[in-house]
Amino acid sequence: MSVAVRPATAADVPLVLDLIRGLAEYERLAHEVRATEDGLRDALFGPQPGAEALIAEVHGAPVGFALFFHNFSTFLGRRGLYLEDLFVRPEYRGTGIGRRLLAEVAALAVARGCQRLEWSVLKWNAPAIGFYRALGAVPLDEWTTFRLAGDTLATLAAARPATP
Amino acid sequence: MSVAVRPATAADVPLVLDLIRGLAEYERLAHEVRATEDGLRDALFGPQPGAEALIAEVHGAPVGFALFFHNFSTFLGRRGLYLEDLFVRPEYRGTGIGRRLLAEVAALAVARGCQRLEWSVLKWNAPAIGFYRALGAVPLDEWTTFRLAGDTLATLAAARPATP
Repeated sequence: MSVAVRPATAADVPLVLDLIRGLAEYERLAHEVRATEDGLRDALFGPQPGAEALIAEVHGAPVGFALFFHNFSTFLGRRGLYLEDLFVRPEYRGTGIGRRLLAEVAALAVARGCQRLEWSVLKWNAPAIGFYRALGAVPLDEWTTFRLAGDTLATLAAARPATP
Repeated sequence: MSVAVRPATAADVPLVLDLIRGLAEYERLAHEVRATEDGLRDALFGPQPGAEALIAEVHGAPVGFALFFHNFSTFLGRRGLYLEDLFVRPEYRGTGIGRRLLAEVAALAVARGCQRLEWSVLKWNAPAIGFYRALGAVPLDEWTTFRLAGDTLATLAAARPATP
């Protein structure tokens, strides 16, 4: 099977959105997808891109993607890569495409002097967790991520004293 | 008590590094700090900044900081803010400075059209977790973060097929 991985281009925005929806369905989170083509285009290819994407193709047909951005570790004092999404269409699973995409992102991380590549996985996703562990990835079990969103975010923001 | 919060400037880099070390000591992770002033200066004030910082002052003396960067949600199709560090020197805890710093970051998130502010906390840090819950923040308990670093990252990167 001939697999190729290439950077996404602006022409891929509808494809990337379709793959995001595919991932959300797999994660049982399809109801959370509110992304639009315009928002993605701006994030990936606007004047100040905030994320990057790679597309995996089999015989020229897109079958998966990786989307990532830089984070920053104050302890290391340098940026790392955070993999927001990794997805391979169901009919192409188990053929090494996910590993290939992850390896391409890892190679970018190393080339850019990053010392860490991180991502999050749903705890029920045992196949993915087994795959990540087999690669040597370690779960950061001692940490919990918290989120403020919507009304609670707005409420806290409004609690800030007015600028004099 | 007169508390002011202001953006960090390049002149604050030694101060920020000192505050990072203070946080690392509190988190019992001081042995992990390898950041340097040069690395921080580049990340915060270089040609392509990858993070931002706010400094909290009491009567003009710096007592805490927040350091954050943009992440990106493919489901929302927009960027958010990720708070990497929030720290107030021990002798100033319990005076509302941490809440004030978090509110300032929340206000920046709202002003920039972000719908989420996220951060991670060590699971044993019960005082911080209580504080975050009281603000309405929710733990993303259904997710685990994985990390590839050092040799395992390099090994995966090297597994990528050579470019033809």
